[in-house]
Amino acid sequence: MTPTRADVVAAAARIRHHVHRTPVLTSRTIDGLLGAEFHFKCENLQRMGAFKIRGATNAVRMLPDVVETVATHSSGNHGAALALAAAEAGLRAIIVVPSDARESKRRAIERYGAEVVTSAPTLASREATLERVVADTGATFVPPYDHADIIAGAGTSALELLEQCPGLDQIWVPVGGGGLAAGTVLAVGDEAQVMLAEPELAADAWQSLNSGVLQGAMPPVTVADGLRTALGKLNFAILREAGMTVRLASEAGIEAWVARLSAILKVVVEPSAVVTLAAMAENADVARGRVGVILSGGNV
Amino acid sequence: MTPTRADVVAAAARIRHHVHRTPVLTSRTIDGLLGAEFHFKCENLQRMGAFKIRGATNAVRMLPDVVETVATHSSGNHGAALALAAAEAGLRAIIVVPSDARESKRRAIERYGAEVVTSAPTLASREATLERVVADTGATFVPPYDHADIIAGAGTSALELLEQCPGLDQIWVPVGGGGLAAGTVLAVGDEAQVMLAEPELAADAWQSLNSGVLQGAMPPVTVADGLRTALGKLNFAILREAGMTVRLASEAGIEAWVARLSAILKVVVEPSAVVTLAAMAENADVARGRVGVILSGGNV
Repeated sequence: MTPTRADVVAAAARIRHHVHRTPVLTSRTIDGLLGAEFHFKCENLQRMGAFKIRGATNAVRMLPDVVETVATHSSGNHGAALALAAAEAGLRAIIVVPSDARESKRRAIERYGAEVVTSAPTLASREATLERVVADTGATFVPPYDHADIIAGAGTSALELLEQCPGLDQIWVPVGGGGLAAGTVLAVGDEAQVMLAEPELAADAWQSLNSGVLQGAMPPVTVADGLRTALGKLNFAILREAGMTVRLASEAGIEAWVARLSAILKVVVEPSAVVTLAAMAENADVARGRVGVILSGGNV
Repeated sequence: MTPTRADVVAAAARIRHHVHRTPVLTSRTIDGLLGAEFHFKCENLQRMGAFKIRGATNAVRMLPDVVETVATHSSGNHGAALALAAAEAGLRAIIVVPSDARESKRRAIERYGAEVVTSAPTLASREATLERVVADTGATFVPPYDHADIIAGAGTSALELLEQCPGLDQIWVPVGGGGLAAGTVLAVGDEAQVMLAEPELAADAWQSLNSGVLQGAMPPVTVADGLRTALGKLNFAILREAGMTVRLASEAGIEAWVARLSAILKVVVEPSAVVTLAAMAENADVARGRVGVILSGGNV
């Protein structure tokens, strides 16, 4: 079923002792560069380094008591998030990791206490391996974004931001699978305008929302590797219902903003987290007034 | 005259609309690495990227109304801090910068609206050039650390940390000229144990406090360039009166912790800011209980 703002509010209460209330940073230098008043919600300073722990924690805490094992496939932040959320809830976690995933991601998953099962790099192999794990162990599959509890959990970041910075005109988020985007749309409602951004080289959400037909993923080439995936079905439905559009960012812009935030704001961000800023810089006059930006992660 | 805790409290009220109340971050990963419960006060996320803006703002706001121009010599954060503090107070600032200073430091000073006068790299030339500037312009010299108002301003970071994290057992700070160290000692009093750290290659404060005789600076070779300077006289007196000692850190340890904080805590820190952590790792059992750490700056 489709989650609502009430689900985001309930998720916030459910996860609050398990995730950081991340700080909001400001910078007059960046305000000057982009011509608006910015408030950066630092999910890169979140536990395990990304907003993903919010959805994973909410989903794990929503599981029925009989569930003892969770599983997913992931080459990135969702695997580490589910590993940590499961460990804290006393559950066993099994993460299918493709053989071409970065060693640091695999190590993070293992550090949080999960078991890693290696698949071939293709999506087909990842899914087949996960199915086998589920069949063998009775694990419950916790998907990365196309799931009501994941979306509601992801929306808690925007909910906090609205409390921390009342009166925002806009809240910008990047779009990959659409967990953060859909959750933010639900959390924000009419309180501010939600603005979405994605890389030109992964413009499937832009195309899906323009055409009204859900598109598949583009070739996985953008440096913003967290945004290579296609929109989930539920995520697409929520974003479409809300009449959302997407602004695009170039690869050069994304890379420049990673360096700029490190130099000016003194925080480490992954490329996916600054697609918003690159899109604002490349689309005149779209960022206006008091602007919230959710810096989605810092795992590089 | 020697500042007191009351001066730190007054400084906090005086500067609060001009500096960030910096966030405090935690990391269970670092807690596990060092065996204590850490609370990181992020002055690297402060305006202009370091705690120095606190002292500079306090000192500038304490000047008599007749003062129209301030000046200092600096190759680092103090020059940028004074430039920004003066600009916000509507004062002219002239900063003497040695010709071997990093171009990024010079540009930061100019970006904040100060005039830059170049000297030869030696301390003698810096001081002579500053004297000439003061004689020519009637500017008031605002020193980097050996000054009651700078010390009181620097102490406001620890004051905030104690409010943000009640019940800390220790607060760790790095020692260079001793502005942050002396201010923290004044701010903290008996509420927690203040712990100091400096590089082995700049162990003048260690030697000064051990011998009871103020030492000059060691050759400026440590990577923690903010800590190369010798203790100021007033700073030394405050630290000696409080019976402080200093823990030392190796260069390899300092460089490793810069990388570690970037990877785990997702913040950019300058080497001077992690000398505390390297010292804890290299001195068994000195970090205990609930430990505050002031991450002094992030300008690299």
